[in-house]
Amino acid sequence: MYQAPTSDMLFVMKELAGLEEIANLPGGEDATPETVEAVLHEAAKLCGEVLEPLNAEGDRNPSRWENGNVHATPGFKAAFRQYVEGGWQGVQHPQEYEGQGLPKLVGTPCVEMLNAANLSFALCPLLTDGAIEALLTAGSEAQKQRFVPKLISGDWTGTMNLTEPQAGSDLAAVRTRAEPQGDGTYKVFGTKIFITWGEHDMAENIVHLVLARTPTAPEGVKGISLFIVPKFLVNEDGTLGARNDVHCVSIEHKLGIKASPTAVLQFGDHGGAIGQLIGEENRGLEYMFIMMNAARFAVGMQGVAVSDRAYQKALAYAKERVQSRPVDGSAKAAVSIIHHPDVRRMLATMRALTEAARALAYVAAGESDRAHGDPDEAARARHQARYEYLVPIVKGWSTELALEVTSLGVQVHGGMGFIEETGAAQLYRDARILPIYEGTTAIQANDLIGRKTLRDGGAAAKALLADIAQTVDALAAQRGAAFESMRKHLAAGKDALASAVDFVLAKTKSDPNAVFAGSVPYLKLAGIVLGGWQMARAMLASQRLMQEDPKFHGAKIATAQFYAQHVLPQAVALEAAIVSANGSEGVLALAEDQF
Amino acid sequence: MYQAPTSDMLFVMKELAGLEEIANLPGGEDATPETVEAVLHEAAKLCGEVLEPLNAEGDRNPSRWENGNVHATPGFKAAFRQYVEGGWQGVQHPQEYEGQGLPKLVGTPCVEMLNAANLSFALCPLLTDGAIEALLTAGSEAQKQRFVPKLISGDWTGTMNLTEPQAGSDLAAVRTRAEPQGDGTYKVFGTKIFITWGEHDMAENIVHLVLARTPTAPEGVKGISLFIVPKFLVNEDGTLGARNDVHCVSIEHKLGIKASPTAVLQFGDHGGAIGQLIGEENRGLEYMFIMMNAARFAVGMQGVAVSDRAYQKALAYAKERVQSRPVDGSAKAAVSIIHHPDVRRMLATMRALTEAARALAYVAAGESDRAHGDPDEAARARHQARYEYLVPIVKGWSTELALEVTSLGVQVHGGMGFIEETGAAQLYRDARILPIYEGTTAIQANDLIGRKTLRDGGAAAKALLADIAQTVDALAAQRGAAFESMRKHLAAGKDALASAVDFVLAKTKSDPNAVFAGSVPYLKLAGIVLGGWQMARAMLASQRLMQEDPKFHGAKIATAQFYAQHVLPQAVALEAAIVSANGSEGVLALAEDQF
Repeated sequence: MYQAPTSDMLFVMKELAGLEEIANLPGGEDATPETVEAVLHEAAKLCGEVLEPLNAEGDRNPSRWENGNVHATPGFKAAFRQYVEGGWQGVQHPQEYEGQGLPKLVGTPCVEMLNAANLSFALCPLLTDGAIEALLTAGSEAQKQRFVPKLISGDWTGTMNLTEPQAGSDLAAVRTRAEPQGDGTYKVFGTKIFITWGEHDMAENIVHLVLARTPTAPEGVKGISLFIVPKFLVNEDGTLGARNDVHCVSIEHKLGIKASPTAVLQFGDHGGAIGQLIGEENRGLEYMFIMMNAARFAVGMQGVAVSDRAYQKALAYAKERVQSRPVDGSAKAAVSIIHHPDVRRMLATMRALTEAARALAYVAAGESDRAHGDPDEAARARHQARYEYLVPIVKGWSTELALEVTSLGVQVHGGMGFIEETGAAQLYRDARILPIYEGTTAIQANDLIGRKTLRDGGAAAKALLADIAQTVDALAAQRGAAFESMRKHLAAGKDALASAVDFVLAKTKSDPNAVFAGSVPYLKLAGIVLGGWQMARAMLASQRLMQEDPKFHGAKIATAQFYAQHVLPQAVALEAAIVSANGSEGVLALAEDQF
Repeated sequence: MYQAPTSDMLFVMKELAGLEEIANLPGGEDATPETVEAVLHEAAKLCGEVLEPLNAEGDRNPSRWENGNVHATPGFKAAFRQYVEGGWQGVQHPQEYEGQGLPKLVGTPCVEMLNAANLSFALCPLLTDGAIEALLTAGSEAQKQRFVPKLISGDWTGTMNLTEPQAGSDLAAVRTRAEPQGDGTYKVFGTKIFITWGEHDMAENIVHLVLARTPTAPEGVKGISLFIVPKFLVNEDGTLGARNDVHCVSIEHKLGIKASPTAVLQFGDHGGAIGQLIGEENRGLEYMFIMMNAARFAVGMQGVAVSDRAYQKALAYAKERVQSRPVDGSAKAAVSIIHHPDVRRMLATMRALTEAARALAYVAAGESDRAHGDPDEAARARHQARYEYLVPIVKGWSTELALEVTSLGVQVHGGMGFIEETGAAQLYRDARILPIYEGTTAIQANDLIGRKTLRDGGAAAKALLADIAQTVDALAAQRGAAFESMRKHLAAGKDALASAVDFVLAKTKSDPNAVFAGSVPYLKLAGIVLGGWQMARAMLASQRLMQEDPKFHGAKIATAQFYAQHVLPQAVALEAAIVSANGSEGVLALAEDQF
């Protein structure tokens, strides 16, 4: 059974992400320690008891398409009612639209638990969050009033319609048309694919947010507008009207997240789907990007979540499965496999990566809260810049490491890991979408280079490096092998990251292929070093707090030491691939016909 | 469609593995250049045209259990007839038992093609090869005469029955009983699980080789004997007799290789399954180990094969899929994604790892041929030691890298990679069993440390390191950035490997947990460096042969350079995890209840 790691979550929130400071910001008042603990424990209960038991069922008995309708896995609809009636859809959203107005830092562990329990289920609230963010960002007050409370209540759910067959990573290629009707509405025509929870029977209406072009729009990404196209039209009084001309023509047969229907939506095959513009024409991509930071962050949390779930499952098996005597001769009989060093190594890798990715993501969430709530304008800008630098890393690195962690989860199970009934394989399959959707790792890495490193001349990256240097100094003041290991490897990691940042700053104009050939290695390098930095901060905090809970804090320090010794050294190898490799030479030396 | 990489295969066989020398050894006479090329091209034809088209079908329409019978995927039975009638089951086996008696080096590319085309199908011949090896190793002449020709003709197939529910990696825990009947036969009782192709309808009989204990056997691995238990008893004249008391009670529902039935076999539920002993009592594990080197090598080839298949599929998609303009501004319109640097990096990674793993495996196959055929006894022993050192690396490293390569294969496809119809996901699922069966990567790593590094005091490892040093010197004599990159990173890799070997030799007795905690990192480090060594040898050969085929040899050098810059630097990170980490401290610092 999934048990939310509330101890680690609260430790990270308090000691690394600054929960207390954030609770003292304007708007953070409700995030008292008591409230936060209560929220986490309630979320843990719902996720462990209601949503996790439906996870395997969703895999065996996926969403089913029938004559344009999609039937969710049995049990999902009732669980969704329980979820929204508990107020969980509104945790992070404003109270004026019926949300709970809690900081993102408090909403984040709830998102983690939800996804750890049931990734397929969680995608429906995740996409609805995205729709809410987009409406709050760019919608008119009337639009917000009409749609947001219904999305928070779960009477309706939301979707994001970006992708088309010819327009995946390349949104410039979007072709869906929106024709103004003269009455303020538009008629939308086109095909959208890969629409998560694009059709289902868990709510009475679905609010599709759709990227499309108006007749006068310029070509490329500057001619894309954002529209609300509800499944059922909404009357002035908020009641539902006619069925709109958007239909689910099929759903995909996928490797994983099978309970989550991935729809092909046809807009306007019967006269045109009625839509209304959000914000101004041709600014759709800009709105999407603001909202996408939130969605990308949430997908990064999916990586943390599925990693933790895989770790818990592997750990339970390793404690139970008895096989072979220990290599050190400490027992005459076979022992549970957790006593074998390589199983230890695998579990420690899973644990260390998951904890590091969690810490980095929560710290990023705290930066977002400060970016909104800090009374000082310059500080808000600083926090916003840091949050934005971290988002592609949280998304890209946490999801890539989820592949490694869920794969190790299978491996710990041995032959049983390959048998579907065990459940380890489902996590391996489910996780495989994470580095793809909401922008592939390469798209995140392009964002990290272009918008997040180059645009400010490396300022956000260098501010982080300066903070890491301070942590390296603090480690040097501690005694013991664990701190010395971390100091040494974090310092080397920091230098490797600094070298990669300098390479990006120096070369992107003169040799863009060289820099972009190292884009994903740069993103991974940044994730490993920034995750290591959080593990270093965690071990310093645990050293200070040791007396309070020696078992927890001792484990934290040992896990950080493992991270320093097994994960951080990879930073230097990645730096070699980016910088010493002289960039594009190796990658681009082959002509297309030599492949 | 799968196209066997015959150019690279022949290059590796001739320039790296010494085909010409091997053809000059006693027994190698048939391996003339013309014969070898003809064999490869015929195998390529069968695999590409007949077996590969059945691969997706096997996934959609797996083997099916019904009342104890297993029906193979439609089309498999006819394809199997075509395979065995072409003589492919006997390529590497002795002519005196109706085989073709070709060197292992020539059989190896055939094995690669077969597995690249259809991993599930290939498992049936692979297990039959294992049974043939076991019979040739330890069977009586009468047993060999009775069973081997029928296995080579494909009238019968073979299985290996090791695993039981409580005995996976730990064969000491085998409980299946064999009771002597006084007439030279035994009655076998027990349950075996995970028996690949343990029941099916592609052949008229199945020859199960079964590990079991006689009543007087000592406990542990020294009390295990090996038995032949055919599905149908075999009369003196070789015709089939009564149905034996071995029954398939179910098959597993697996993550991948779905067309390959994974059987639970029940022996002796109706009075006892009649079996005959192979070799001497209580020496079963020893025979299995001799044979297992062959099976483990073959699974390593499966890793190479599925990697190549994933590379070919991703490459085809990358050349076809048009998306986004190039980052260097070299085109105004969207281009095929192979022009994007990160897609290049992924394809180059897939290609470089696959080529390195292929080269290392073929070189190992050549060592096996020399170990059998070299007229000099000391040379035979030397080659045997090298082959045995390489087997766990070929098995462990090639299969672990297959996970990375098939995952990159999904990633190159973007969202389409997650859709089952595309086929990339099947390779990702199929590959996941490879680092598990025939001994997990940890089991390979234990073998590498215990039997292959410690037992000879590091002699085989150090002989390899000395050869690598010679290659480093040869690289230094060449000009140009590619050679300089390889020289630098191979030298660093060699030092890292030497340091790991020294650590293993120095510490295994005093701190076994420390050494075994680094066992899999040591195996991966050895794989990366030895694979890099082969890429270095390849680039030296290509430099020499450049005029013959500038496109092929230029690609070989560029791929080697990429390997040097992107893969070899990981060796240093692994060495840090093994050695600088001071071993067990990080991995074993956590108490069981702290996990």
